Amino acid sequence: MYNAPLKDMLFVMKELAGLEDIATLPGFEDAGLETAQAVLDESAKLCGEVLAPLNVEGDRNPSAWKDGVVTATPGFREAFRQFAEGGWQGVQHPVEYEGQGLPKLIATPCMEMLNASNLSFALCPLLTDGAIEALLTAGTEAQKQTYVPKLIAGVWTGTMNLTEPQAGSDLALVRTRAEPQGDGSFKVFGTKIFITWGEHDMAKNIAHLVLARTPNAPEGVKGISLFIVPKFLVNADGSLGERNDVHCVSIEHKLGIKASPTAVLQFGDHGGAIGYLIGEENRGLEYMFIMMNAARFAVGMQGVGVSERAYQKAVGYAKERVQSRPVDGSAKQPVAIIQHPDVRRMLSTMRSLTEASRALAYVAAAHCDVAHRHPDAATRAEHQAIYEFLVPVVKGWSTELSLEVTSLGVQVHGGMGFIEETGAAQYYRDARILPIYEGTTAIQANDLIGRKTVRDGGAVAKSLLADVAQTIGALGRHDTPACRSMKRYLELGHGSLAAAIDFVVANVKRDPKAVFAGSVPYLKLAGIVLGGWQMARALLVAMEKREDDPSFYGAKIATARFFAEHVLSQASALEASIVTAKGDEGVLALDADQF
Amino acid sequence: MYNAPLKDMLFVMKELAGLEDIATLPGFEDAGLETAQAVLDESAKLCGEVLAPLNVEGDRNPSAWKDGVVTATPGFREAFRQFAEGGWQGVQHPVEYEGQGLPKLIATPCMEMLNASNLSFALCPLLTDGAIEALLTAGTEAQKQTYVPKLIAGVWTGTMNLTEPQAGSDLALVRTRAEPQGDGSFKVFGTKIFITWGEHDMAKNIAHLVLARTPNAPEGVKGISLFIVPKFLVNADGSLGERNDVHCVSIEHKLGIKASPTAVLQFGDHGGAIGYLIGEENRGLEYMFIMMNAARFAVGMQGVGVSERAYQKAVGYAKERVQSRPVDGSAKQPVAIIQHPDVRRMLSTMRSLTEASRALAYVAAAHCDVAHRHPDAATRAEHQAIYEFLVPVVKGWSTELSLEVTSLGVQVHGGMGFIEETGAAQYYRDARILPIYEGTTAIQANDLIGRKTVRDGGAVAKSLLADVAQTIGALGRHDTPACRSMKRYLELGHGSLAAAIDFVVANVKRDPKAVFAGSVPYLKLAGIVLGGWQMARALLVAMEKREDDPSFYGAKIATARFFAEHVLSQASALEASIVTAKGDEGVLALDADQF
Repeated sequence: MYNAPLKDMLFVMKELAGLEDIATLPGFEDAGLETAQAVLDESAKLCGEVLAPLNVEGDRNPSAWKDGVVTATPGFREAFRQFAEGGWQGVQHPVEYEGQGLPKLIATPCMEMLNASNLSFALCPLLTDGAIEALLTAGTEAQKQTYVPKLIAGVWTGTMNLTEPQAGSDLALVRTRAEPQGDGSFKVFGTKIFITWGEHDMAKNIAHLVLARTPNAPEGVKGISLFIVPKFLVNADGSLGERNDVHCVSIEHKLGIKASPTAVLQFGDHGGAIGYLIGEENRGLEYMFIMMNAARFAVGMQGVGVSERAYQKAVGYAKERVQSRPVDGSAKQPVAIIQHPDVRRMLSTMRSLTEASRALAYVAAAHCDVAHRHPDAATRAEHQAIYEFLVPVVKGWSTELSLEVTSLGVQVHGGMGFIEETGAAQYYRDARILPIYEGTTAIQANDLIGRKTVRDGGAVAKSLLADVAQTIGALGRHDTPACRSMKRYLELGHGSLAAAIDFVVANVKRDPKAVFAGSVPYLKLAGIVLGGWQMARALLVAMEKREDDPSFYGAKIATARFFAEHVLSQASALEASIVTAKGDEGVLALDADQF
Repeated sequence: MYNAPLKDMLFVMKELAGLEDIATLPGFEDAGLETAQAVLDESAKLCGEVLAPLNVEGDRNPSAWKDGVVTATPGFREAFRQFAEGGWQGVQHPVEYEGQGLPKLIATPCMEMLNASNLSFALCPLLTDGAIEALLTAGTEAQKQTYVPKLIAGVWTGTMNLTEPQAGSDLALVRTRAEPQGDGSFKVFGTKIFITWGEHDMAKNIAHLVLARTPNAPEGVKGISLFIVPKFLVNADGSLGERNDVHCVSIEHKLGIKASPTAVLQFGDHGGAIGYLIGEENRGLEYMFIMMNAARFAVGMQGVGVSERAYQKAVGYAKERVQSRPVDGSAKQPVAIIQHPDVRRMLSTMRSLTEASRALAYVAAAHCDVAHRHPDAATRAEHQAIYEFLVPVVKGWSTELSLEVTSLGVQVHGGMGFIEETGAAQYYRDARILPIYEGTTAIQANDLIGRKTVRDGGAVAKSLLADVAQTIGALGRHDTPACRSMKRYLELGHGSLAAAIDFVVANVKRDPKAVFAGSVPYLKLAGIVLGGWQMARALLVAMEKREDDPSFYGAKIATARFFAEHVLSQASALEASIVTAKGDEGVLALDADQF
């Protein structure tokens, strides 16, 4: 069971992410509230009715490999057909390639629903989005025309081939070779691992985007190029030709997302896999980063989605399960466990973390839309910088907190949570990959520090802090317990984040080990302060509109207060982790052999 | 691979838990350092060589049920024979029933090793210990003579039968009936679920300890009695008689600890299961609590054990896996990931949490020994009160932190961590039950607040705080970075815990919902402050002895400092969660239907 939280989603889109402003951007004139509502309603139906029921099935009957052929979980193929025919792969892609050309702000809740309903299934469109993004960024017009409409139609799907056994986080170690054939094509040789939906039977062709080295390419990341290697070669008329020399030699046996096949792909074992260069030689990593920003944001939405799903399941159980009398003696009989304070604390933690991460992600999506569509270049650049700052936070923080949320989801179920048939454990297992793939949390945190904070001397980070300060000022104009609490903890959080930014900028050259030892706490601190800022903004809206819908806005007020007291209150501890320790005395005090 | 951390264990036993003092207690005269060392060495051998290699096997080939018969994982039966023949079931049990009569302080590291090597296997002895404890507490001499030596010899094993489908945390809802037969025996009827090692083929008989109601017993927890229901009836000469009417109708399909069969037991479907009352009628819960204190402490050791195991595995991988150049540019080539600051932060978090939880548990075990053996009654009572205060902390905190430690263990492995063959994921799955069974963390926290803090007006809690203050004073006499840092954060933690104790004691009657809404944060706060206190004590010892063994004591100093800055620093956030929110405005502000 999954019911998309449409009212919450629309609240965030409208009140926090500025949907109406987005609808004033060129090309988005039809993408206002009405469109958003209609699109979300349809998405909710598909996800709730078709994809959510297949989630458990995928866990019990994972994708299966036999003789190089991967068969998806029963039901997935038909569901993917419905997904594709509904146009869902194209929501945010350009109309000229048969996409729907809608704002990322509208695509994002669709992405959330897709992931909440079925994380394994959602990965196939997620990777296909990445391939589309790469082609649109760096492909020739012919490449775009050949591949993009097919990918958007869901007739073909896409993959990203980065990792090799010796090259995980460190792409400098990529060894896959691409040899020019003289006719403009290349022959690709090598082994790629951890390729999500790298082989399957849900589409007629698979477009593998592959990082490889050309002969004489420079060492390290500056010698990596991007190639497209289709599973079946494509004839000039767009029809499918010969089977290419890329083969799935096995799929992994994983902790979670079992329906999503994680392939080992062998390129060129039978003479060479035909591939075509995308963009310029040796600029592969640069293109990959563009598509990775999109993919990282999308993985952040996986965190939000699985958190929402785990929350809904836990609430359902807590309302049904009757156990123990109330602690205040207000009833003689056992009550539903949702009445017990600690269950309430767990559910409120799950809820407030999910809401905060959703709000931060949707706000980021709106910045992305402005960055792409605003007529003024300076405005575009400003929003692009904010979006790029937020991407590692959305990816890192939403996925880390999904571990806590799904773990609490198991805990709410008590002993039943540990029994696989209950279903809560699947979210706990599935979520565990999210802070790892598309760049571990440490990789996100290094990006947040290196490219996003230090490079501009903390300018973007501090501009966000200035906005937070404005919200703190607005909170000061309401004398209620919730606003007082939020003001107090948001101020403390603001102070901690400001101190952390200063520390990072001041010390990164002199003591890089100390700064990077605090990178993940820095990312988490940014997450709770910026997420808390969204909760504060929601609180202010709710204060104003409370009388229109007391239950809905009352819940927003209580949830914001809970977040302030139970989550934002962690800011000082994170600050301590970041600024206290010097590299060689703190985290790096021990020699490796003392471990 | 598991290497018991013998040096660390002996350090804690000797320097923090006062092994030499324990060896002055009556009956423990031979249980000094030499004995401890010999026992630990032998235990390490059995656990490292026999049980640890079976851990993965148990995950891949769980216990299997067929027609009421449960077959343990291949190898377990033989391993259990070795365990029993080595006398390991009897380490802490009385010599008069053929136990070894050693202090709990020596039994505890053995318990840790057992759990670190094989959590599923360790559960069988753990539950058998519980049965022995119950019999020693409330059994007749004949019952003790009949069962205890057999249980200690590992010829028979024991179980605890509390849970029923409608009665989990709430034992007031137990419905299993026991009807007197006129000959002193009873016939037991009912269904028990979640019975660990409730059926298996590793021993000749199973002694089920069962909570049930006699006819006309009072409602609720005051009408529950404790019975022993053997799988095979026992003849007067101790030989086995008829099969009793208790049958395993199924075992659960679980997230983890798969080798340990979790049975649904049906009592009395074929005329009634013969059972015998243990102790007095209607006092079952009281006896159960005595044995639960032991079992809860043991589950806390499961948390320590699985944390240590996950830590060792992560360290091994981090030393081998080569990826990326150092952030400070100190090498041109990729290095082992243990050189990267964030990996170091993760490993140090795992290490410091494991060491702190181990130290707190061993110190608690020493209090238990004094409480049982000291010649002076007042001293016994004082130590018993401290032990009882610490049991829910050891259980709740060690198991909650094992979730964090095992999760970090997966994260250190990156993508490989998500692949089941790697093994890191098993610890993550296995650990998830620990904060649930033998009383969820919320149940532990309620116990810590209700019975252990409020009942004596916070007296024991404050006596521990006074001891912490002494350590803070001692830290002030060393002007080094580690001691300054530890002093600072231990003082802050002391202040937060003091504030929380005052809040709990002052408000529990007036606003019980508010107090219990902070119960789990209160338990965690007690854990980090009291665990941090042990780290501080270790730091002081290390300062003094540093020159004797610079690597070992240097690591103690660095780990203590890390704990202070990265873990103890969370105290203020926990305090905020406890003392800020009023019941109806904070955690309980929403109606159930607003969720």
